[in-house]
Amino acid sequence: MSEDSIFSKIIRGEIPAQKLYEDEGVIAILDINPLSEGHTLVIPKEPASTMDELSDDSAAALGRALPRICRAIMMATGATSTNILQNNGKSAGQEVDHVHVHVIPRFADRSSGAGLSKTWTPGKLNADEGADLGRKIARLL
Amino acid sequence: MSEDSIFSKIIRGEIPAQKLYEDEGVIAILDINPLSEGHTLVIPKEPASTMDELSDDSAAALGRALPRICRAIMMATGATSTNILQNNGKSAGQEVDHVHVHVIPRFADRSSGAGLSKTWTPGKLNADEGADLGRKIARLL
Repeated sequence: MSEDSIFSKIIRGEIPAQKLYEDEGVIAILDINPLSEGHTLVIPKEPASTMDELSDDSAAALGRALPRICRAIMMATGATSTNILQNNGKSAGQEVDHVHVHVIPRFADRSSGAGLSKTWTPGKLNADEGADLGRKIARLL
Repeated sequence: MSEDSIFSKIIRGEIPAQKLYEDEGVIAILDINPLSEGHTLVIPKEPASTMDELSDDSAAALGRALPRICRAIMMATGATSTNILQNNGKSAGQEVDHVHVHVIPRFADRSSGAGLSKTWTPGKLNADEGADLGRKIARLL
């Protein structure tokens, strides 16, 4: 249950964390295992495990907080870029069973880079298959 | 200018795309270079280049649309997990100069995996440095 996750305990103040920001819907803390300086977790207070289980209002609060948090991290660290990453489910690499958004600063002038590297191997969308799949998803929305 | 980006042209209907969803603030389309089946882009209509430049209201609209879009993609494709990824700036791997969120389905039962692999090499947050940095960021928020 994500009510018992480490993030719910941090939200309730039962476990300490370096808190950066808090509003009605979310908190932001420094990640204790950072991929780069200023690596931050933005966490909805609602104890949902994954984005697909999160309420619309919590997801909106999460989105609303991101621009200001990105700006503050960039100003404080000198980062020029950010990766925002959110993993849902085991096959996606999720480790804590409570929605959390990673904001990972990137620095143009640091050759060391961040502790995150991505390998991007795209395919090509087949027009007919894409139209079929697109209609199937759109009907569910 | 992101008003001239391919995504602004898609939003204005000047370039075709496989549209999945549209509301006042965002559209969602299939990525034509998918990392996995159902790879979707969720795009705010506001022509901001990066998350740190996006308005609070557009960022909230973007967040609000994500749970329903994740659910529809998972139901349509059978995906068990999703990576949500959003790159801001050249050092983060951003290629189109208009905010866009990748929703990348992952499939537990497909050995091929997705065309996205991540290497995660975290450090450890030093308590004193973390407290200093945390206060610095928090003051900006």
